[in-house]
Amino acid sequence: MTDQITPDWIAVDWGISNLRAFAMRGATVLARARSDEGMATLTRDGFEPALRRLIGDWQVQGAGPVVACGMVGSRQGWVEAPYRNVPCTPLSEGLTRAPARSGLKVYVVSGLAQHAPADVMRGEETQIAGFLALNPGWDGVLCLPGTHTKWALLSAGEVVSFQTFMTGEMFALLSTASVLRHSVAGAGWEAAAFDAAVSDAISRPERLAARLFSLRAGDLLDQRGAGATRAALSGYLIGAELAAARAYWLGQQVAILGTGTQARAYQSALSAQGVSAMLVDTERATLAGLTAAHRSLKAML
Amino acid sequence: MTDQITPDWIAVDWGISNLRAFAMRGATVLARARSDEGMATLTRDGFEPALRRLIGDWQVQGAGPVVACGMVGSRQGWVEAPYRNVPCTPLSEGLTRAPARSGLKVYVVSGLAQHAPADVMRGEETQIAGFLALNPGWDGVLCLPGTHTKWALLSAGEVVSFQTFMTGEMFALLSTASVLRHSVAGAGWEAAAFDAAVSDAISRPERLAARLFSLRAGDLLDQRGAGATRAALSGYLIGAELAAARAYWLGQQVAILGTGTQARAYQSALSAQGVSAMLVDTERATLAGLTAAHRSLKAML
Repeated sequence: MTDQITPDWIAVDWGISNLRAFAMRGATVLARARSDEGMATLTRDGFEPALRRLIGDWQVQGAGPVVACGMVGSRQGWVEAPYRNVPCTPLSEGLTRAPARSGLKVYVVSGLAQHAPADVMRGEETQIAGFLALNPGWDGVLCLPGTHTKWALLSAGEVVSFQTFMTGEMFALLSTASVLRHSVAGAGWEAAAFDAAVSDAISRPERLAARLFSLRAGDLLDQRGAGATRAALSGYLIGAELAAARAYWLGQQVAILGTGTQARAYQSALSAQGVSAMLVDTERATLAGLTAAHRSLKAML
Repeated sequence: MTDQITPDWIAVDWGISNLRAFAMRGATVLARARSDEGMATLTRDGFEPALRRLIGDWQVQGAGPVVACGMVGSRQGWVEAPYRNVPCTPLSEGLTRAPARSGLKVYVVSGLAQHAPADVMRGEETQIAGFLALNPGWDGVLCLPGTHTKWALLSAGEVVSFQTFMTGEMFALLSTASVLRHSVAGAGWEAAAFDAAVSDAISRPERLAARLFSLRAGDLLDQRGAGATRAALSGYLIGAELAAARAYWLGQQVAILGTGTQARAYQSALSAQGVSAMLVDTERATLAGLTAAHRSLKAML
C-alpha cells in the first residue's frame, strides 16, 4: 500500500498537447502527474473527467482548490478566462472559476493580450509571474522558447510588451512535413553550421526564404549531412527571429526560460550577438507562478 | 466503340504527386491522361506499371518513344538522369533511357543543378526550354510558381542561374498544419490585405517572422476574418521571397509561368514593385519543351 497523497491544493499546467498536475502543500510539491490529454484532444465537457482521471488518487484536503494556467482558459478550453491587456502585472487578483459537476473548485488564470501589434499569451504569464517571484525587482527581457516563442519586456513588475514567434512550430513543420525532412532526419547537430546560419540570417534576414531550399539542394549535391543541415535550419529560423526581435534583446538584460536543447540554442545565438543570457528552469517558474496565483486566491476567499 | 488513339510518341510530365501523359503526333496532342501516381507513391519497380495503367488504351505506332520530365528522373525515380550544371541550355541532346520490361522506350530529361548557392530543378528545365521555343531569342527572367517556386535568369538560350523558394510549401503547411489554420480556412481573399503584406515584407523582410503569429492574434482579438488573414499570409510569404529574389526581377524583363491564382498573386506583387510580368500557359510550355526533347531524340536515333 502506498502512502496517501494529501495536498491542500493542486497546481495545473494545461497546454494544447499536455496536462500536468502537481499535488501541492503550500509551495511544496508532494507529487506530479502528467497525461497527453491536452486542450486539443478535449471538448468542453471533457476537461473535468480528464483532470479526475489524472489526479484521482490524490485526497484533496477540505476546500483545497485547483489553480490552472494555459490553454485550458481559451475559448476552446474548459472556461474562457478573458485576456488582460498589457501593460499590466502578469497575474490579476481575480481568477475565472470553471464549472465542475463534482466538488472540484477549479480556478483558471487569465492570459495576456496586446493590440498593436496584435499578440496573445496563455500560460506564459504564469511563468513570467513565477520568474518575477523568484527574482524580485528584476527588470529586463524574458525569452520563453517553445512551439511559439515569446519575448516579454518586464519593468517594475509589469509586462510592458511582448511578441510571439512561430519559430518552433516552423522548425517542426519544415523538419517533419516539408521536402527538407529528407535532409534533416536524425539527432545530429553541428554547432558551426548553426552559428553560421544564425549570423547569416541576422545580418541579411531576407535570406531566410532563399536559404531553405538550398539546405535540401546542398545535401543532394554535396552530401552535407543531416547534422549540419538540421543545425543550419534551426540557425536560419532562430537568426531570422533574432533579427525581428532585435529591440527585445539589444542592450537588454535577458533571461531564457528553459534548460533544454531549444533554450540552449537561443542562448548560443544570443551569445554570438554579445548578449549573455541566463537559463531558468521552466517547471520551477511555472510552479512559482501558480503558487503566487493560489496565494492571491486564498487572500480573496 | 471509341476511335483508337494512335500517337507516334508520348509526352510525360511526372512530378512528385501527379503523372500526366499526352498522346502526341508531332507537336499535336491527340489525347490527355492523368493519375495521382506521382513519384512519391511509387517504388522503382512501380513506374512502368503505373505508366502502362495510364496509357494502356493508346496504340503507340512503331518505335514511338516516351519522353518524360520531372521527378521521374530523380534518385528515387524510375531512373536517375544526372543533373547538368548551369550555365547551360535547358535541354541536353542526350536523354537517359529508363529500363523497361515491356517494349516501351522511355527517355528521361535531365534536371539542372547549380553549386553556389546550391540549387536543383527537375521538370522546370523542360518548361523553360518550351518557353524559349515559343519565344525565340527571349532574354530575361522566368518565374515558375509552384510548391517550390523557381526564378531563372535566361540569356542567349541558356539558363545562367536560378533560385528556388519554398514559398508554396510554406503557405500550404502554415495554412493547413499550423496554428494559423484556424484563422485562414475558407476561400476568401482580400486583395488590399495581400498588397499591404507584400509591401511590408519587401521593405522589412525581417518582419516575416514577427508577423506570422500576429495574423492569428489579430484574428482572435479583432475578428479580422479568414479572407484578410489568408491573403496577408500569402502576401508576407511572397513579399519575403521578392525581397530575397530582388536581383532576379529588378530592372528585368519578367515572365511568369502559370495562369492560376498563385501566378496572378506573383503578378500582382511584382506589379506593385513596378514590374509588368506576362503570364504564360504552363501546359503549353511543358508540351513545347517535351516536343523539343523528342525532336532532338529523333535526330540522335
